[in-house]
Amino acid sequence: MKFNIAVLPGDGIGPEITQQSVKVLKAVADRFDHEFNFEEAEVGAVAIDLLGDPLPESTLELCKKSDAVLFGAIGDPKYDNDPSAKVRPEQGLLKLRKELGLFANIRPVKVYENLIHKSPLKSENIEGADMVIYRELTGGIYFGEKSTAEDGKSASDLCTYSVEEIERIAHLAFKAAEKRRKKLTLVDKANVLETSRLWRKTVTEIAKDYPGVKVDYLFVDNAAMQMIVNPKQFDVILTENMFGDIISDEASVIGGSIGLLESASIGADNAMFEPIHGSYPQATGKGIANPLASVLSAAMLLDHLNLKKEAETVRMAVELSIKLNVCTNDLNSDNHYSTERVGDFLESVI
Amino acid sequence: MKFNIAVLPGDGIGPEITQQSVKVLKAVADRFDHEFNFEEAEVGAVAIDLLGDPLPESTLELCKKSDAVLFGAIGDPKYDNDPSAKVRPEQGLLKLRKELGLFANIRPVKVYENLIHKSPLKSENIEGADMVIYRELTGGIYFGEKSTAEDGKSASDLCTYSVEEIERIAHLAFKAAEKRRKKLTLVDKANVLETSRLWRKTVTEIAKDYPGVKVDYLFVDNAAMQMIVNPKQFDVILTENMFGDIISDEASVIGGSIGLLESASIGADNAMFEPIHGSYPQATGKGIANPLASVLSAAMLLDHLNLKKEAETVRMAVELSIKLNVCTNDLNSDNHYSTERVGDFLESVI
Ligand SMILES: CC(C)[C@H](C(=O)O)[C@@H](O)C(=O)O
Ligand SMILES: CC(C)[C@H](C(=O)O)[C@@H](O)C(=O)O
Repeated sequence: MKFNIAVLPGDGIGPEITQQSVKVLKAVADRFDHEFNFEEAEVGAVAIDLLGDPLPESTLELCKKSDAVLFGAIGDPKYDNDPSAKVRPEQGLLKLRKELGLFANIRPVKVYENLIHKSPLKSENIEGADMVIYRELTGGIYFGEKSTAEDGKSASDLCTYSVEEIERIAHLAFKAAEKRRKKLTLVDKANVLETSRLWRKTVTEIAKDYPGVKVDYLFVDNAAMQMIVNPKQFDVILTENMFGDIISDEASVIGGSIGLLESASIGADNAMFEPIHGSYPQATGKGIANPLASVLSAAMLLDHLNLKKEAETVRMAVELSIKLNVCTNDLNSDNHYSTERVGDFLESVI
Repeated sequence: MKFNIAVLPGDGIGPEITQQSVKVLKAVADRFDHEFNFEEAEVGAVAIDLLGDPLPESTLELCKKSDAVLFGAIGDPKYDNDPSAKVRPEQGLLKLRKELGLFANIRPVKVYENLIHKSPLKSENIEGADMVIYRELTGGIYFGEKSTAEDGKSASDLCTYSVEEIERIAHLAFKAAEKRRKKLTLVDKANVLETSRLWRKTVTEIAKDYPGVKVDYLFVDNAAMQMIVNPKQFDVILTENMFGDIISDEASVIGGSIGLLESASIGADNAMFEPIHGSYPQATGKGIANPLASVLSAAMLLDHLNLKKEAETVRMAVELSIKLNVCTNDLNSDNHYSTERVGDFLESVI
């Protein structure tokens, strides 16, 4: 089969890790006799530097007409501590999500048996933890009206949600729960926020369509505790944009390596796949960045294209690299495999 | 000296733990020759049931004219899953904070040497962790305009901050940092939120008045990771209301027992002291609730009244109870001291 894949390497370590995923996808195409057309485009700080725009029109167009987008990372410290910067790399990512309609960010979190010792949590607390977070990605306080008073003395951000926005991601999350351990936890702050009460009401309604799924409700502050105290209780977590940002990053520490966590951002017409780690500027160009999160994102991409066997093959290659310790230094302090050598290994076993 | 202390036991285990604190405060008054006048009032679900109002006017008046408020807990599950409930216990707490102008919520987090094994985190990661969180408490999305569309199909919450709101708590946090390890971390989401950019700008300005304090900036998602991966890096954390709610509850798991965590909520004219654990309805009336968080909150109350030696005495009593294992079951699974017996022990050693 034939697919067009847009590749957006982005900033920092983005390019070097994405390169390994492309390598892996090419190996998959070879082995399974597909044709993947890769086309690259700029996004983020790199795009600002080159074209003055964190999401150039040409990049957006490329993404829109592609079958899937493979995304690297975004962000550059030179923008972070400048509250007055008018253009920011992150705007590129946010606009991309909005323009492509990527309303559902899906982040699986699991614990790899032979990396469990790397977790900051005690092994007995996390052994067997296996959850997936459904974070709403194009609504809430991220995209509501923002303003700063003319005298600069006050500012505001509006958080809004419509029933429709809640429903479309809720259905995805419930469907996922049906195929998993049949438990869904809504994380909100319904004791304080009007939007959270709308989430709770809407999800309670939708739950009736999925009688096999047990629904739980957790306030976000309690969820932030439970995530550490007893992460095994979670199967599918459903939450709004801002809470999802926080809770999913918190969850990412459980397995002991953020270098292993993949994500998918799904919309009605488009889909994008990216590692959840950031641009990690300090590591750029050193060949020490772990490519596995990006490669696992590429596996989600294959799943999305309905190439299930192909996705499974990539995942098995990743597990093999972990088992054989063909890993970057963050996972394996004995050997020193470079980003590229890990990519080469994966390519060779596919 | 003579002080009026308002006592608001509230819901669930609130009354039984607060009773121990009152006992301890009475012992302090005896020993140090003070006169504490305790007056009780209703708040929360209890107040709704009795008077139809989670914060009756009489309770508010009592608090206003007191020198300090000792607060128990609030919340009742019968309200939590009813998104259409018009009156909620939490409204009582929120209104109390607003009416008393309690803009700074102060939550110390530390690790007790002989309870370290109870933490879900590995000991080497947390040994010596010692931080205090300054959470803004009367602004942000908690108190901004809320609305639901007439057709019920959408809802919104407004997050606003003024420079003034940021400044007053920032000064408190910087002053605290000066007396501690001289590091302040602002937690925000300045890459997305306009209000966060105002926080970052304002704090950067204020920092100039405190040249001895090193200032760090962390995005809230990253902070949620760092809190678990490396909590020792934190000294004073400063943050807005919603992020503070999440991050401080997350931080509460580090030490292994939420039953030990005290808090102070401070304003220009009033101050309130409460354990950070909630009303824990399942434990109500069983005599198993840990009173130490409430008692440590009472110690903060004494500090606030400038009774430093008295506060120190209470803290030493608490440490002794931990050392001698005169603790409730959550801290000590061998012996079974009841809530009341722990209170009696503390009273006896003061
Ligand atoms: C870079 C930033 C805008 C983004 C977000 O907050 O959504 C990131 O943290 C993420 O989770 O993908
Ligand atoms: C009960 C609730 C409204 C409250 C809050 O969110 O502030 C609580 O979680 C807290 O942190 O004191």
